Amino acid sequence: MTGRAEFASWLEGTNDLTSRFVGSAGIADLVNVAGGLPDASLFPSERLAEIAAQAIRDRPEVALGYAPTGGLPELREAIAARYRARGVNVGASNVLVTASGTQALDLVGKVLIEPGRRIACDFPTYAGAMDAFRPREPRYQDMDLSRPDRLAGAMARADLVYMIPNFSNPTGKLVDLPTRRALVEAAHETDTWLIEDDPYGALYYDGPALPGLLELSAEGCDAPYDGPVIHMGSLSKQLVPGLRVGWVIAAPDLIAKLVSAKQATDLCSNALSQLLTLAALEEGMIEEMHPKAIALYRERRTALAEAMERHISDWFDWEIPVGGMFIWARAKDPSLDVDRLVDAGVERGVLVGPGNVFDPLGLSGPALRLNFTLNDAEKLDRGMARLALALRDIAAGARMPEATAAE
Amino acid sequence: MTGRAEFASWLEGTNDLTSRFVGSAGIADLVNVAGGLPDASLFPSERLAEIAAQAIRDRPEVALGYAPTGGLPELREAIAARYRARGVNVGASNVLVTASGTQALDLVGKVLIEPGRRIACDFPTYAGAMDAFRPREPRYQDMDLSRPDRLAGAMARADLVYMIPNFSNPTGKLVDLPTRRALVEAAHETDTWLIEDDPYGALYYDGPALPGLLELSAEGCDAPYDGPVIHMGSLSKQLVPGLRVGWVIAAPDLIAKLVSAKQATDLCSNALSQLLTLAALEEGMIEEMHPKAIALYRERRTALAEAMERHISDWFDWEIPVGGMFIWARAKDPSLDVDRLVDAGVERGVLVGPGNVFDPLGLSGPALRLNFTLNDAEKLDRGMARLALALRDIAAGARMPEATAAE
Repeated sequence: MTGRAEFASWLEGTNDLTSRFVGSAGIADLVNVAGGLPDASLFPSERLAEIAAQAIRDRPEVALGYAPTGGLPELREAIAARYRARGVNVGASNVLVTASGTQALDLVGKVLIEPGRRIACDFPTYAGAMDAFRPREPRYQDMDLSRPDRLAGAMARADLVYMIPNFSNPTGKLVDLPTRRALVEAAHETDTWLIEDDPYGALYYDGPALPGLLELSAEGCDAPYDGPVIHMGSLSKQLVPGLRVGWVIAAPDLIAKLVSAKQATDLCSNALSQLLTLAALEEGMIEEMHPKAIALYRERRTALAEAMERHISDWFDWEIPVGGMFIWARAKDPSLDVDRLVDAGVERGVLVGPGNVFDPLGLSGPALRLNFTLNDAEKLDRGMARLALALRDIAAGARMPEATAAE
Repeated sequence: MTGRAEFASWLEGTNDLTSRFVGSAGIADLVNVAGGLPDASLFPSERLAEIAAQAIRDRPEVALGYAPTGGLPELREAIAARYRARGVNVGASNVLVTASGTQALDLVGKVLIEPGRRIACDFPTYAGAMDAFRPREPRYQDMDLSRPDRLAGAMARADLVYMIPNFSNPTGKLVDLPTRRALVEAAHETDTWLIEDDPYGALYYDGPALPGLLELSAEGCDAPYDGPVIHMGSLSKQLVPGLRVGWVIAAPDLIAKLVSAKQATDLCSNALSQLLTLAALEEGMIEEMHPKAIALYRERRTALAEAMERHISDWFDWEIPVGGMFIWARAKDPSLDVDRLVDAGVERGVLVGPGNVFDPLGLSGPALRLNFTLNDAEKLDRGMARLALALRDIAAGARMPEATAAE
């Protein structure tokens, strides 16, 4: 007998990716190309250790106390100043400090999604965003970026647009400038909320950065910005992920509602992390780390592409992305069972990201998301060699299905 | 013209308490007895500064990296060990580390509440919990703790029970042992999820602590605990609030779903805060701080009660609570306009908590929540003297309504 209330139905739609990953974490020598992790050797840990100790000693009532729900005022202002330096006319009332980019998605979902509302995305898109929105029960529709003339029509049918213009997760795709302009124009024309999720915007390896959707939307606007773009930034890929600091830049009335939602979600963010972030911004730590990260990740991007060429080019096609953390490998065989491949990969000592979790509408064929930032060239080569073995295993298993039944 | 999707309807139900408080934060010399803030002089800041620096230096990849969603394994185990020492047979699979007690409420709401589900509470109850549950759109029903024979019936009509047995927020009420036993028995009998929100359990000023609902539910159970109690703990009132560390102890299948929900909410908690918490638990920092906090807050509880006696006893009745952070002051005049009194208090330089936000069903008369932990005796006296002036202001204003129309 059980009278306990059932778990909420939205949980049935979540993917089990993380538990599968966690389940394989104990395997010695596993090469993990599934996640989106930075290389910890880049962390400016000595300086952050000094700042942390100093912040706690000098301002214990701030560093260890409750912070304002919307973020420390000086950090909101410092983030606004960073965007103003890029020509975006924003003030502190445009800024919410969040406890991670994921929290920004959760809060925007709470404020802007009611059951059945329609979110337009360029699929495949970030599974973590769909997970964050899932408790609010939205519907999804694909937005074809190759037809700029149809964007306004697509937006008019949506309540919210979700985009990762810089090196989309999972595809690594960069949205080109004309399409960015068309997206922003359509959002203004239809007055549709347009999320620009931008965790990877600092990770351009070739050529200069394109202007973001917020920059394009804010061109020539009065302060404070009041347009339809909801920009999300994060410290995770620019400095360190563990501080759990992100931010939202948006119209002040939306920011005020996000603050209400945050109050009901975690009351306030960690103050010590906010003081560390503020010091990092003020000292230029992000600028100091940036060229090192770019050099390291650019080299690893090449290393992964070369390893893929050596080991898995019979099975997959891909483009080399201009930035970000991932190569999106599309299977040549449309019947490839990606979930089986992921399991077979774990058996062989490599963990890869299955593409299907990013593609709930089933619009693209079987694919893998492969990360190149965490591992060095040697490990990336080993990982791809193992993936080739796993591909042969499942090809053999497909001919002899009983051989794999044990698992 | 605006085509922007409307803000979600649940936001209309949120109280504006925080924005009212924030709006008055700039007033010089305001005595704030509205919040539930600890005294920062108790923070062991020097030792925490040392530990923070050392954790970042010694384990940068952990302290500054992504943490497992459910919490650092060693912290989950350390929290479980703390409860085992009190006779509760729990393991790490019973523990979720959260980014604050508020996040625990948000996650439990996401996992256990569907629109229309019924939550039974002992009203008035914690407004922050109702705010955290609000996006899930539950209904509320009052549970009369004075009739233990009716608890099982009340629980059978509810999907979830929410209780703060130790010094309820806002009333400071301590649920006695027979009622605790009856609650746990009814929860087992009806197999109803029973939340024990316990941020104040360490703040007993008179006599020994009563066993908690989790302890009573887990008596003689096999490990891991699989009963109906969902226990929520927090570091905020035992050490410092700014680390934003809380935890849930519950049945492993519920913990697993809470981990899924947390993944979709903030991916993971701050790792540095978790390492600081772990060190604090291992070094006995909580035990070291505890007698100092008890001595300070016990003295201030007396100071507030004496100041109330001196200044506002003509208008209010109250009981002196055995622990916690608040005295609940019930107005003698059932027509007292508490919202007006809060505003008049701000004018006079004291910020008090209106009781009505804790009582959405309107079951109790006008009341105030008064905090005694943040301010010393002299400030508490000044605050109550100002509150008496505000009471006279609104009494005068009630006779001359035009005099207050300016605001």
